[in-house]
Amino acid sequence: MDTKETLKRYKRDIDSELRRFFDSRINRVESIDSSASELINNLKDFTMNGGKRIRPILLIFGYKAVGGIDEKEIIKASLCVELMQSFLLIHDDIIDDDDLRRGNPTVHKVYENMYKRAPVDSKKLGRDMGIITGDIVSVLGSEAIMNTDFPPELKVKALDKFNRVIINTCFGQMLDVLSETSTDIKEEDIAKIHKLKSAIYTIEGPLHIGAILGEANENQLNVLTEFAISLGQAFQLQDDILGMFGTAETTGKQVGNDLREGKKTLLIKKALDKANNKDKKVIMKCLGNKNILKKDIEKVKEIIVKTGSLDYSKELAKEMVMKAKSCLVNGDFKKEGKDFLLGLADYVVEREY
Amino acid sequence: MDTKETLKRYKRDIDSELRRFFDSRINRVESIDSSASELINNLKDFTMNGGKRIRPILLIFGYKAVGGIDEKEIIKASLCVELMQSFLLIHDDIIDDDDLRRGNPTVHKVYENMYKRAPVDSKKLGRDMGIITGDIVSVLGSEAIMNTDFPPELKVKALDKFNRVIINTCFGQMLDVLSETSTDIKEEDIAKIHKLKSAIYTIEGPLHIGAILGEANENQLNVLTEFAISLGQAFQLQDDILGMFGTAETTGKQVGNDLREGKKTLLIKKALDKANNKDKKVIMKCLGNKNILKKDIEKVKEIIVKTGSLDYSKELAKEMVMKAKSCLVNGDFKKEGKDFLLGLADYVVEREY
Repeated sequence: MDTKETLKRYKRDIDSELRRFFDSRINRVESIDSSASELINNLKDFTMNGGKRIRPILLIFGYKAVGGIDEKEIIKASLCVELMQSFLLIHDDIIDDDDLRRGNPTVHKVYENMYKRAPVDSKKLGRDMGIITGDIVSVLGSEAIMNTDFPPELKVKALDKFNRVIINTCFGQMLDVLSETSTDIKEEDIAKIHKLKSAIYTIEGPLHIGAILGEANENQLNVLTEFAISLGQAFQLQDDILGMFGTAETTGKQVGNDLREGKKTLLIKKALDKANNKDKKVIMKCLGNKNILKKDIEKVKEIIVKTGSLDYSKELAKEMVMKAKSCLVNGDFKKEGKDFLLGLADYVVEREY
Repeated sequence: MDTKETLKRYKRDIDSELRRFFDSRINRVESIDSSASELINNLKDFTMNGGKRIRPILLIFGYKAVGGIDEKEIIKASLCVELMQSFLLIHDDIIDDDDLRRGNPTVHKVYENMYKRAPVDSKKLGRDMGIITGDIVSVLGSEAIMNTDFPPELKVKALDKFNRVIINTCFGQMLDVLSETSTDIKEEDIAKIHKLKSAIYTIEGPLHIGAILGEANENQLNVLTEFAISLGQAFQLQDDILGMFGTAETTGKQVGNDLREGKKTLLIKKALDKANNKDKKVIMKCLGNKNILKKDIEKVKEIIVKTGSLDYSKELAKEMVMKAKSCLVNGDFKKEGKDFLLGLADYVVEREY
């Protein structure tokens, strides 16, 4: 099976398991209050809506790569990283004040709309309910690991890794938030945020949790880390590129969001470094401008191309993929897992969404 | 030792263990960024500042009551509920928009003040950093359980309970937030919130986590639940009474906070039920009024007294303590743990802070 087909097949399996997970939780909390089931139902809608399930799939193949064979249990465990994702996104959406996520209202917006006519500050109520919903799903992630048949000592190890991934991602988010307080951000600071928010969060964390449940040895974990750090950087670079040069239809995100939010991605940072004064002003005028016009985004895109910043990011992403693949190729892994991960590495920079 | 002395002794032990815990975390995250250590340091200040450590102490005596003897390890594990408390309080303070907690600035306020002069919306930045700090400490709680020498199968069971306590408390918080959207709240709804936010959170959760680590049997857990539900109600009633009739010096909270926040505690609810129309209007005018005057609070207190609502709450609290003690007395528990819990039950309604 090629990479795309494998991704599709596992996405299907993960989605049905997710649906089962939420339905059992909806039943469980019904006795508390109908608003509790409603909350889990909102969470289900939010989580089921879109998403490539790349993190749970990486978890499954981290397990397979080190020789794990219990596909049923590892799919159940793999939900943990998808639930972690919902937890962090729900809080991120509050922090970024985003109304839409993958075309649907964000959780805080769902609650804001629900209580528009109540005698309360519905915007604040929406935000409060978003905080609470995120807190609840933060716990559900570790439940997914505990609800499996893996031996307790492996569960504890996997949970420990799971927790560290959350902490590191939160620190990445913290650096991101704090970066907006300074007007001058260094390339190494961007790299640090990428490492925490992409490499560790999206790639290494899921691979390690799976590998731990498959009883990986120290050496295997180290190789997976090397693979993840390089691939994570490539993933983030491609994400930034698609965010500016992709289309809203394929990515599901508004074009130029990073610009709008004032995020100095490497793409923007490099363009700023190389641009002449006039172009620099154009970028600075757009950066963090919530009401940026389509034609201004087009202008910034032109500057990113003509300064060579787009090529720089593209080249760097390809290099990182090569580096990731070369360390995995010589590692001690089972064929099925290894082959999929090598294919996935290429897919990261070829994808258009 | 009497109850007060025991509380004092264990608070001292828990505080030193907490300090050690935070210091090791500050070291661990230094490599990420100095702002990461700063965050954990803020968290340390927030957690170390005051607090009676009633939850970790209950956890320790839940363990002792079922025969646990490893005091060193159970003190380490007991931090989990204090960290859970910090996690929930930090997010609560954002939801309630509170600037002060036990006389010191709340976490979101600390960050707001820190970035007052930065070119950003410092109020929003403070709130964002508060959300992130809470998310990080949500994970540290389960780390406290994992960092002990208890066998993995007991850790998994304790973690499972720990997670359920968080979920139930969050649902309590949800009901609390949503209660403000309706003008008419029933006594049974108040009881439901109390059960989730006090009985389960403050009493049953800690007792069960400790008892699970001490290998409690089903029957012991059930008796502890009965004890906790009744005592939790008493605890909440006394909290509400102290919130209106205590002093800011002893409770550390502004008098009349519930009134100011529009919270219909049983104390206020009963007064509303029994008051004449004129007095009813006085209460309604104060309920949810952020700029309420001291003399208005005094008026409401008078109404609470003359309608018999204060006596009603006091009597109910005493009844609940009796009920709690009577189920524990006949249970199969070790003397040291049982004696302390019986003493604690009386203390709950006698305390003035």
